[in-house]
Amino acid sequence: MRSGVFITLEGGEGAGKTTQQALLAERLQQEGYTCLCTREPGGTPLGKELRALLLHGDPISPLAELLLYAADRAEHVQTRIQPALAAGQVVVCDRFTDSTLAYQGYGRGLDLDLIRQVNQLATGTLQPHLTLWLDLPPQVGLGRARSRQAAGFSEAGALQSTSADRMEQAQLPFHQRLYQGFQELAATEPQRIVRIDAQGSPQEVAQRIWSVVKSRLAEYCAPQNPEGQRRG
Amino acid sequence: MRSGVFITLEGGEGAGKTTQQALLAERLQQEGYTCLCTREPGGTPLGKELRALLLHGDPISPLAELLLYAADRAEHVQTRIQPALAAGQVVVCDRFTDSTLAYQGYGRGLDLDLIRQVNQLATGTLQPHLTLWLDLPPQVGLGRARSRQAAGFSEAGALQSTSADRMEQAQLPFHQRLYQGFQELAATEPQRIVRIDAQGSPQEVAQRIWSVVKSRLAEYCAPQNPEGQRRG
Repeated sequence: MRSGVFITLEGGEGAGKTTQQALLAERLQQEGYTCLCTREPGGTPLGKELRALLLHGDPISPLAELLLYAADRAEHVQTRIQPALAAGQVVVCDRFTDSTLAYQGYGRGLDLDLIRQVNQLATGTLQPHLTLWLDLPPQVGLGRARSRQAAGFSEAGALQSTSADRMEQAQLPFHQRLYQGFQELAATEPQRIVRIDAQGSPQEVAQRIWSVVKSRLAEYCAPQNPEGQRRG
Repeated sequence: MRSGVFITLEGGEGAGKTTQQALLAERLQQEGYTCLCTREPGGTPLGKELRALLLHGDPISPLAELLLYAADRAEHVQTRIQPALAAGQVVVCDRFTDSTLAYQGYGRGLDLDLIRQVNQLATGTLQPHLTLWLDLPPQVGLGRARSRQAAGFSEAGALQSTSADRMEQAQLPFHQRLYQGFQELAATEPQRIVRIDAQGSPQEVAQRIWSVVKSRLAEYCAPQNPEGQRRG
Protein backbone atom coordinates (compact mmCIF):
# COMPACT_ATOMS: atom_id res chain seq x y z
CA MET A 1 0.00 0.00 0.00
CA ARG A 2 1.23 3.51 -0.87
CA SER A 3 1.63 5.80 2.08
CA GLY A 4 0.97 9.52 1.92
CA VAL A 5 2.77 12.42 3.53
CA PHE A 6 1.41 14.33 6.49
CA ILE A 7 2.37 18.03 6.71
CA THR A 8 1.14 20.36 9.45
CA LEU A 9 1.19 24.16 9.56
CA GLU A 10 1.66 25.77 12.94
CA GLY A 11 2.03 29.28 14.33
CA GLY A 12 0.36 32.08 16.24
CA GLU A 13 -2.52 34.32 15.19
CA GLY A 14 -1.98 36.19 11.93
CA ALA A 15 1.05 34.13 10.88
CA GLY A 16 -0.54 33.41 7.50
CA LYS A 17 -1.27 29.69 7.86
CA THR A 18 -4.51 29.75 5.88
CA THR A 19 -2.98 31.67 2.97
CA GLN A 20 0.11 29.48 2.92
CA GLN A 21 -1.97 26.31 3.10
CA ALA A 22 -3.83 27.36 -0.06
CA LEU A 23 -0.61 28.30 -1.88
CA LEU A 24 1.09 25.06 -0.88
CA ALA A 25 -1.88 22.97 -1.98
CA GLU A 26 -1.91 24.76 -5.35
CA ARG A 27 1.78 24.08 -5.84
CA LEU A 28 1.46 20.44 -4.81
CA GLN A 29 -1.35 19.93 -7.32
CA GLN A 30 0.71 21.60 -10.06
CA GLU A 31 3.46 19.11 -9.28
CA GLY A 32 1.09 16.19 -9.63
CA TYR A 33 0.34 15.38 -5.99
CA THR A 34 -3.17 14.67 -4.76
CA CYS A 35 -3.71 16.86 -1.74
CA LEU A 36 -6.12 17.05 1.18
CA CYS A 37 -6.35 20.50 2.82
CA THR A 38 -7.90 20.31 6.28
CA ARG A 39 -7.72 21.96 9.68
CA GLU A 40 -8.17 21.63 13.43
CA PRO A 41 -10.47 22.20 15.07
CA GLY A 42 -13.23 21.67 12.53
CA GLY A 43 -12.03 19.18 9.92
CA THR A 44 -15.10 16.91 10.25
CA PRO A 45 -18.86 17.44 10.73
CA LEU A 46 -18.39 16.78 14.48
CA GLY A 47 -15.38 19.08 14.43
CA LYS A 48 -17.39 21.96 13.02
CA GLU A 49 -19.78 21.71 15.97
CA LEU A 50 -16.86 21.52 18.40
CA ARG A 51 -15.06 24.43 16.73
CA ALA A 52 -18.09 26.63 17.38
CA LEU A 53 -18.10 25.58 21.06
CA LEU A 54 -14.33 26.00 21.44
CA LEU A 55 -13.86 29.34 19.72
CA HIS A 56 -17.19 31.09 20.09
CA GLY A 57 -19.06 29.40 22.97
CA ASP A 58 -19.14 30.22 26.68
CA PRO A 59 -15.91 29.90 28.70
CA ILE A 60 -14.88 26.28 29.35
CA SER A 61 -12.52 24.89 32.00
CA PRO A 62 -8.99 24.26 30.61
CA LEU A 63 -9.17 20.47 31.02
CA ALA A 64 -12.54 20.21 29.28
CA GLU A 65 -11.16 22.41 26.49
CA LEU A 66 -8.17 20.08 26.11
CA LEU A 67 -10.44 17.03 25.90
CA LEU A 68 -12.69 18.70 23.31
CA TYR A 69 -9.68 19.41 21.11
CA ALA A 70 -8.70 15.76 21.57
CA ALA A 71 -12.19 14.56 20.54
CA ASP A 72 -12.03 16.76 17.45
CA ARG A 73 -8.59 15.33 16.66
CA ALA A 74 -9.55 11.69 17.21
CA GLU A 75 -12.49 12.01 14.82
CA HIS A 76 -10.36 13.92 12.31
CA VAL A 77 -7.47 11.43 12.35
CA GLN A 78 -9.72 8.42 12.07
CA THR A 79 -12.22 9.62 9.47
CA ARG A 80 -10.18 12.01 7.27
CA ILE A 81 -6.41 12.06 7.79
CA GLN A 82 -5.68 8.32 8.02
CA PRO A 83 -7.86 7.41 5.01
CA ALA A 84 -6.20 10.14 2.89
CA LEU A 85 -2.72 8.96 3.91
CA ALA A 86 -3.67 5.35 3.18
CA ALA A 87 -4.70 6.52 -0.32
CA GLY A 88 -1.24 8.04 -0.83
CA GLN A 89 -2.31 11.69 -0.60
CA VAL A 90 -0.38 14.64 0.80
CA VAL A 91 -2.38 15.91 3.79
CA VAL A 92 -1.83 19.56 4.69
CA CYS A 93 -3.40 20.36 8.05
CA ASP A 94 -3.79 23.85 9.53
CA ARG A 95 -2.86 23.23 13.22
CA PHE A 96 -2.34 19.86 14.93
CA THR A 97 -0.81 18.55 18.17
CA ASP A 98 1.81 21.32 18.48
CA SER A 99 -0.90 23.97 18.65
CA THR A 100 -2.43 22.13 21.60
CA LEU A 101 0.95 22.12 23.38
CA ALA A 102 1.48 25.81 22.61
CA TYR A 103 -2.02 27.14 23.37
CA GLN A 104 -3.22 24.87 26.19
CA GLY A 105 0.23 24.24 27.65
CA TYR A 106 2.37 27.35 27.27
CA GLY A 107 -0.66 29.64 26.87
CA ARG A 108 -3.14 28.31 29.45
CA GLY A 109 -0.63 26.66 31.77
CA LEU A 110 -1.83 23.04 31.58
CA ASP A 111 0.83 20.42 32.28
CA LEU A 112 2.76 19.57 29.08
CA ASP A 113 3.04 15.87 29.93
CA LEU A 114 -0.73 15.69 30.43
CA ILE A 115 -1.22 17.32 27.01
CA ARG A 116 1.24 14.91 25.38
CA GLN A 117 -0.66 12.01 26.94
CA VAL A 118 -4.00 13.31 25.62
CA ASN A 119 -2.50 14.08 22.19
CA GLN A 120 -1.26 10.53 21.98
CA LEU A 121 -4.65 9.14 22.97
CA ALA A 122 -6.22 11.08 20.11
CA THR A 123 -3.62 10.33 17.42
CA GLY A 124 -2.40 6.84 18.28
CA THR A 125 0.91 6.43 16.48
CA LEU A 126 0.33 9.16 13.89
CA GLN A 127 2.96 11.92 13.77
CA PRO A 128 3.39 14.58 11.08
CA HIS A 129 6.25 13.85 8.68
CA LEU A 130 6.92 17.58 8.55
CA THR A 131 5.68 20.53 10.58
CA LEU A 132 6.11 24.05 9.21
CA TRP A 133 6.22 26.61 12.01
CA LEU A 134 5.34 30.00 10.53
CA ASP A 135 7.45 32.21 12.74
CA LEU A 136 6.11 35.73 13.15
CA PRO A 137 6.71 37.91 16.25
CA PRO A 138 3.43 37.94 18.25
CA GLN A 139 3.02 41.75 18.10
CA VAL A 140 3.16 41.60 14.30
CA GLY A 141 0.83 38.61 14.03
CA LEU A 142 -1.75 40.07 16.42
CA GLY A 143 -1.65 43.35 14.51
CA ARG A 144 -2.38 41.44 11.28
CA ALA A 145 -5.18 39.43 12.88
CA ARG A 146 -6.78 42.55 14.36
CA SER A 147 -6.67 44.61 11.18
CA ARG A 148 -8.20 41.61 9.40
CA GLN A 149 -10.98 41.58 12.02
CA ALA A 150 -11.47 45.35 11.68
CA ALA A 151 -11.85 44.89 7.93
CA GLY A 152 -14.55 42.28 8.53
CA PHE A 153 -12.58 39.31 7.22
CA SER A 154 -12.43 35.96 8.96
CA GLU A 155 -9.23 33.94 9.07
CA ALA A 156 -10.36 32.07 5.96
CA GLY A 157 -10.54 35.34 4.02
CA ALA A 158 -14.31 35.18 3.58
CA LEU A 159 -16.54 38.05 4.67
CA GLN A 160 -17.99 36.95 7.99
CA SER A 161 -18.58 38.18 11.50
CA THR A 162 -16.05 40.78 12.59
CA SER A 163 -15.89 39.42 16.13
CA ALA A 164 -12.51 37.97 17.09
CA ASP A 165 -12.51 34.39 18.38
CA ARG A 166 -11.52 33.37 21.91
CA MET A 167 -7.84 32.90 21.05
CA GLU A 168 -7.53 36.17 19.18
CA GLN A 169 -9.14 38.04 22.09
CA ALA A 170 -6.45 36.88 24.52
CA GLN A 171 -3.91 39.51 25.50
CA LEU A 172 -0.35 39.92 24.26
CA PRO A 173 1.35 38.10 27.20
CA PHE A 174 -0.69 34.97 26.31
CA HIS A 175 0.50 35.18 22.71
CA GLN A 176 4.08 35.77 23.85
CA ARG A 177 3.92 32.61 25.97
CA LEU A 178 2.69 30.53 23.07
CA TYR A 179 5.35 32.02 20.79
CA GLN A 180 7.92 30.85 23.33
CA GLY A 181 6.16 27.48 23.21
CA PHE A 182 6.62 27.13 19.46
CA GLN A 183 10.28 28.13 19.84
CA GLU A 184 10.87 25.43 22.45
CA LEU A 185 8.95 22.76 20.53
CA ALA A 186 10.96 23.53 17.37
CA ALA A 187 14.19 23.30 19.36
CA THR A 188 13.13 19.92 20.80
CA GLU A 189 12.27 18.30 17.46
CA PRO A 190 14.40 20.06 14.83
CA GLN A 191 14.07 17.22 12.33
CA ARG A 192 10.27 17.34 12.26
CA ILE A 193 9.58 21.03 12.99
CA VAL A 194 11.08 23.47 10.51
CA ARG A 195 11.01 27.20 11.23
CA ILE A 196 9.77 29.33 8.34
CA ASP A 197 10.32 33.08 8.46
CA ALA A 198 6.73 34.31 7.99
CA GLN A 199 7.62 37.96 7.35
CA GLY A 200 7.53 39.28 3.79
CA SER A 201 4.99 38.86 1.00
CA PRO A 202 2.83 35.71 0.79
CA GLN A 203 4.77 34.71 -2.34
CA GLU A 204 8.11 35.05 -0.56
CA VAL A 205 6.90 32.91 2.34
CA ALA A 206 5.39 30.37 -0.07
CA GLN A 207 8.75 30.05 -1.81
CA ARG A 208 10.51 29.36 1.51
CA ILE A 209 7.91 26.72 2.34
CA TRP A 210 8.11 25.06 -1.06
CA SER A 211 11.89 24.69 -0.93
CA VAL A 212 11.53 22.77 2.35
CA VAL A 213 8.53 20.69 1.26
CA LYS A 214 10.09 19.80 -2.12
CA SER A 215 13.20 18.30 -0.57
CA ARG A 216 11.19 16.37 2.02
CA LEU A 217 8.78 14.97 -0.56
CA ALA A 218 11.74 13.72 -2.56
CA GLU A 219 12.64 11.61 0.49
CA TYR A 220 9.15 10.26 1.07
CA CYS A 221 7.28 9.76 -2.18
CA ALA A 222 6.97 10.52 -5.87
CA PRO A 223 3.96 12.47 -7.21
CA GLN A 224 1.02 10.36 -8.35
CA ASN A 225 0.68 12.25 -11.67
CA PRO A 226 4.04 13.91 -12.39
CA GLU A 227 4.01 16.51 -15.19
CA GLY A 228 6.94 14.76 -16.85
CA GLN A 229 5.06 11.45 -17.06
CA ARG A 230 1.93 13.09 -18.45
CA ARG A 231 3.98 14.93 -21.11
CA GLY A 232 6.06 11.89 -22.01
CA MET B 1 -13.67 22.36 55.52
CA ARG B 2 -16.72 20.10 55.49
CA SER B 3 -16.69 17.47 52.83
CA GLY B 4 -19.81 16.23 51.08
CA VAL B 5 -20.81 12.79 49.90
CA PHE B 6 -20.76 11.73 46.26
CA ILE B 7 -23.35 9.12 45.21
CA THR B 8 -23.73 7.88 41.63
CA LEU B 9 -26.62 5.96 40.07
CA GLU B 10 -25.77 3.46 37.35
CA GLY B 11 -27.59 0.94 35.22
CA GLY B 12 -28.91 0.13 31.78
CA GLU B 13 -31.77 1.74 29.86
CA GLY B 14 -35.11 1.72 31.67
CA ALA B 15 -33.62 0.76 35.05
CA GLY B 16 -35.35 3.70 36.73
CA LYS B 17 -32.36 5.91 37.54
CA THR B 18 -34.16 9.20 36.93
CA THR B 19 -37.15 8.27 39.07
CA GLN B 20 -34.94 6.92 41.85
CA GLN B 21 -32.72 9.98 41.76
CA ALA B 22 -35.75 12.21 42.40
CA LEU B 23 -37.03 9.96 45.21
CA LEU B 24 -33.61 9.78 46.84
CA ALA B 25 -33.15 13.55 46.67
CA GLU B 26 -36.58 14.06 48.23
CA ARG B 27 -35.70 11.70 51.08
CA LEU B 28 -32.29 13.30 51.63
CA GLN B 29 -33.90 16.74 51.89
CA GLN B 30 -36.50 15.42 54.35
CA GLU B 31 -33.62 14.15 56.48
CA GLY B 32 -31.93 17.56 56.46
CA TYR B 33 -29.26 17.07 53.80
CA THR B 34 -28.56 19.68 51.13
CA CYS B 35 -28.56 17.81 47.85
CA LEU B 36 -27.36 18.44 44.29
CA CYS B 37 -29.10 16.31 41.66
CA THR B 38 -27.16 16.21 38.41
CA ARG B 39 -26.35 13.93 35.50
CA GLU B 40 -23.92 12.93 32.78
CA PRO B 41 -23.77 13.79 30.04
CA GLY B 42 -25.35 17.21 30.34
CA GLY B 43 -24.78 18.52 33.88
CA THR B 44 -23.34 21.88 32.70
CA PRO B 45 -24.10 24.37 29.89
CA LEU B 46 -21.25 22.82 27.85
CA GLY B 47 -22.54 19.37 28.77
CA LYS B 48 -26.00 20.13 27.39
CA GLU B 49 -24.44 20.91 24.00
CA LEU B 50 -22.34 17.75 24.17
CA ARG B 51 -25.30 15.63 25.23
CA ALA B 52 -27.13 16.68 22.06
CA LEU B 53 -24.11 15.72 19.94
CA LEU B 54 -23.56 12.42 21.79
CA LEU B 55 -27.12 11.14 21.92
CA HIS B 56 -28.83 12.75 18.93
CA GLY B 57 -26.07 13.86 16.52
CA ASP B 58 -24.51 12.03 13.57
CA PRO B 59 -22.49 8.85 14.25
CA ILE B 60 -19.12 9.52 15.89
CA SER B 61 -16.03 7.29 16.04
CA PRO B 62 -15.78 5.42 19.38
CA LEU B 63 -12.60 7.19 20.51
CA ALA B 64 -14.02 10.66 19.78
CA GLU B 65 -17.17 9.62 21.65
CA LEU B 66 -15.08 8.57 24.66
CA LEU B 67 -13.22 11.89 24.66
CA LEU B 68 -16.46 13.89 24.42
CA TYR B 69 -17.82 12.07 27.46
CA ALA B 70 -14.54 12.89 29.20
CA ALA B 71 -14.81 16.60 28.29
CA ASP B 72 -18.36 16.66 29.62
CA ARG B 73 -17.14 14.98 32.83
CA ALA B 74 -14.12 17.26 33.33
CA GLU B 75 -16.33 20.35 33.08
CA HIS B 76 -18.95 18.78 35.33
CA VAL B 77 -16.50 17.70 38.04
CA GLN B 78 -14.71 21.02 38.09
CA THR B 79 -17.63 23.44 37.89
CA ARG B 80 -20.46 21.58 39.68
CA ILE B 81 -19.53 18.41 41.57
CA GLN B 82 -16.36 19.55 43.36
CA PRO B 83 -17.83 22.90 44.47
CA ALA B 84 -20.95 21.14 45.85
CA LEU B 85 -18.83 18.58 47.72
CA ALA B 86 -16.61 21.34 49.08
CA ALA B 87 -19.78 23.00 50.41
CA GLY B 88 -20.68 19.76 52.24
CA GLN B 89 -23.59 18.76 49.98
CA VAL B 90 -24.72 15.28 48.99
CA VAL B 91 -24.25 15.02 45.22
CA VAL B 92 -26.48 12.47 43.47
CA CYS B 93 -25.35 11.96 39.90
CA ASP B 94 -27.25 10.00 37.21
CA ARG B 95 -24.39 8.11 35.48
CA PHE B 96 -20.65 8.62 35.98
CA THR B 97 -17.43 6.75 35.17
CA ASP B 98 -18.93 3.26 35.43
CA SER B 99 -21.37 4.04 32.61
CA THR B 100 -18.42 4.93 30.38
CA LEU B 101 -16.75 1.60 31.20
CA ALA B 102 -20.00 -0.29 30.57
CA TYR B 103 -21.18 1.50 27.39
CA GLN B 104 -17.91 2.40 25.65
CA GLY B 105 -15.95 -0.58 26.96
CA TYR B 106 -18.25 -3.59 27.27
CA GLY B 107 -20.79 -2.16 24.80
CA ARG B 108 -18.62 -0.62 22.06
CA GLY B 109 -15.51 -2.73 22.62
CA LEU B 110 -13.01 0.02 23.49
CA ASP B 111 -10.09 -1.07 25.66
CA LEU B 112 -11.04 -0.91 29.37
CA ASP B 113 -7.58 0.32 30.44
CA LEU B 114 -7.80 3.14 27.90
CA ILE B 115 -11.20 4.12 29.32
CA ARG B 116 -9.88 4.01 32.90
CA GLN B 117 -7.00 6.26 31.83
CA VAL B 118 -9.39 8.77 30.21
CA ASN B 119 -11.79 8.59 33.18
CA GLN B 120 -8.93 9.43 35.49
CA LEU B 121 -7.84 12.35 33.32
CA ALA B 122 -11.34 13.78 33.56
CA THR B 123 -11.93 13.19 37.28
CA GLY B 124 -8.48 13.58 38.82
CA THR B 125 -8.67 11.92 42.23
CA LEU B 126 -12.46 12.09 42.56
CA GLN B 127 -14.24 8.77 43.13
CA PRO B 128 -17.86 8.23 44.18
CA HIS B 129 -18.23 7.30 47.85
CA LEU B 130 -21.12 5.06 46.85
CA THR B 131 -22.40 3.77 43.52
CA LEU B 132 -25.89 2.30 43.31
CA TRP B 133 -26.19 -0.14 40.42
CA LEU B 134 -29.89 -0.47 39.55
CA ASP B 135 -29.93 -4.07 38.40
CA LEU B 136 -32.64 -4.87 35.88
CA PRO B 137 -32.38 -7.62 33.23
CA PRO B 138 -31.76 -5.88 29.87
CA GLN B 139 -34.89 -7.30 28.19
CA VAL B 140 -37.05 -5.84 30.95
CA GLY B 141 -35.26 -2.46 30.92
CA LEU B 142 -35.40 -2.10 27.14
CA GLY B 143 -39.10 -2.98 27.19
CA ARG B 144 -39.68 -0.22 29.76
CA ALA B 145 -37.60 2.31 27.77
CA ARG B 146 -39.43 1.50 24.54
CA SER B 147 -42.91 1.71 25.98
CA ARG B 148 -41.90 5.07 27.49
CA GLN B 149 -40.79 6.19 24.01
CA ALA B 150 -43.98 4.90 22.43
CA ALA B 151 -45.97 6.93 24.95
CA GLY B 152 -44.00 10.04 23.98
CA PHE B 153 -42.16 10.45 27.25
CA SER B 154 -38.45 11.17 27.49
CA GLU B 155 -36.30 9.62 30.19
CA ALA B 156 -36.93 12.68 32.37
CA GLY B 157 -40.65 12.03 32.24
CA ALA B 158 -41.41 15.24 30.33
CA LEU B 159 -43.38 15.19 27.08
CA GLN B 160 -40.75 15.51 24.38
CA SER B 161 -39.70 13.96 21.09
CA THR B 162 -40.68 10.32 20.83
CA SER B 163 -37.44 9.36 19.05
CA ALA B 164 -35.19 7.03 21.04
CA ASP B 165 -31.61 8.23 21.60
CA ARG B 166 -28.52 6.52 20.17
CA MET B 167 -28.05 4.22 23.16
CA GLU B 168 -31.69 3.17 23.32
CA GLN B 169 -31.66 2.36 19.59
CA ALA B 170 -28.85 -0.16 20.03
CA GLN B 171 -29.87 -3.79 19.82
CA LEU B 172 -30.34 -6.29 22.66
CA PRO B 173 -26.85 -7.90 22.38
CA PHE B 174 -25.29 -4.46 23.02
CA HIS B 175 -27.41 -4.05 26.14
CA GLN B 176 -26.59 -7.58 27.26
CA ARG B 177 -22.88 -6.80 26.99
CA LEU B 178 -23.20 -3.69 29.09
CA TYR B 179 -25.29 -5.57 31.65
CA GLN B 180 -22.42 -8.02 31.92
CA GLY B 181 -20.15 -4.98 32.30
CA PHE B 182 -22.05 -3.66 35.30
CA GLN B 183 -21.99 -7.16 36.84
CA GLU B 184 -18.21 -7.38 36.47
CA LEU B 185 -17.62 -3.83 37.73
CA ALA B 186 -19.76 -4.52 40.80
CA ALA B 187 -17.82 -7.73 41.47
CA THR B 188 -14.50 -5.85 41.18
CA GLU B 189 -15.39 -3.05 43.62
CA PRO B 190 -17.98 -4.51 46.00
CA GLN B 191 -17.32 -1.88 48.68
CA ARG B 192 -18.13 1.07 46.39
CA ILE B 193 -20.68 -0.47 44.01
CA VAL B 194 -23.81 -1.82 45.64
CA ARG B 195 -26.30 -3.82 43.59
CA ILE B 196 -29.91 -2.73 44.00
CA ASP B 197 -32.69 -5.00 42.73
CA ALA B 198 -34.54 -2.61 40.38
CA GLN B 199 -37.63 -4.80 39.91
CA GLY B 200 -40.80 -3.91 41.77
CA SER B 201 -42.59 -0.62 42.34
CA PRO B 202 -40.63 2.67 42.45
CA GLN B 203 -41.41 2.89 46.19
CA GLU B 204 -40.04 -0.61 46.82
CA VAL B 205 -36.82 0.19 44.96
CA ALA B 206 -36.54 3.56 46.72
CA GLN B 207 -36.79 1.79 50.09
CA ARG B 208 -33.94 -0.59 49.13
CA ILE B 209 -31.83 2.39 48.06
CA TRP B 210 -32.53 4.37 51.20
CA SER B 211 -31.53 1.56 53.51
CA VAL B 212 -28.10 1.45 51.82
CA VAL B 213 -27.65 5.22 51.59
CA LYS B 214 -28.72 5.78 55.19
CA SER B 215 -26.09 3.46 56.62
CA ARG B 216 -23.36 4.92 54.40
CA LEU B 217 -24.23 8.51 55.30
CA ALA B 218 -23.93 7.61 58.95
CA GLU B 219 -20.31 6.71 58.23
CA TYR B 220 -19.49 9.85 56.26
CA CYS B 221 -21.37 12.85 57.57
CA ALA B 222 -24.23 14.22 59.63
CA PRO B 223 -27.05 16.16 57.96
CA GLN B 224 -26.60 19.93 57.82
CA ASN B 225 -30.13 20.62 59.16
CA PRO B 226 -31.21 17.47 60.98
CA GLU B 227 -34.92 17.33 61.88
CA GLY B 228 -34.02 16.52 65.42
CA GLN B 229 -31.92 19.63 65.82
CA ARG B 230 -34.53 21.85 64.21
CA ARG B 231 -37.21 20.43 66.50
CA GLY B 232 -34.99 20.57 69.52
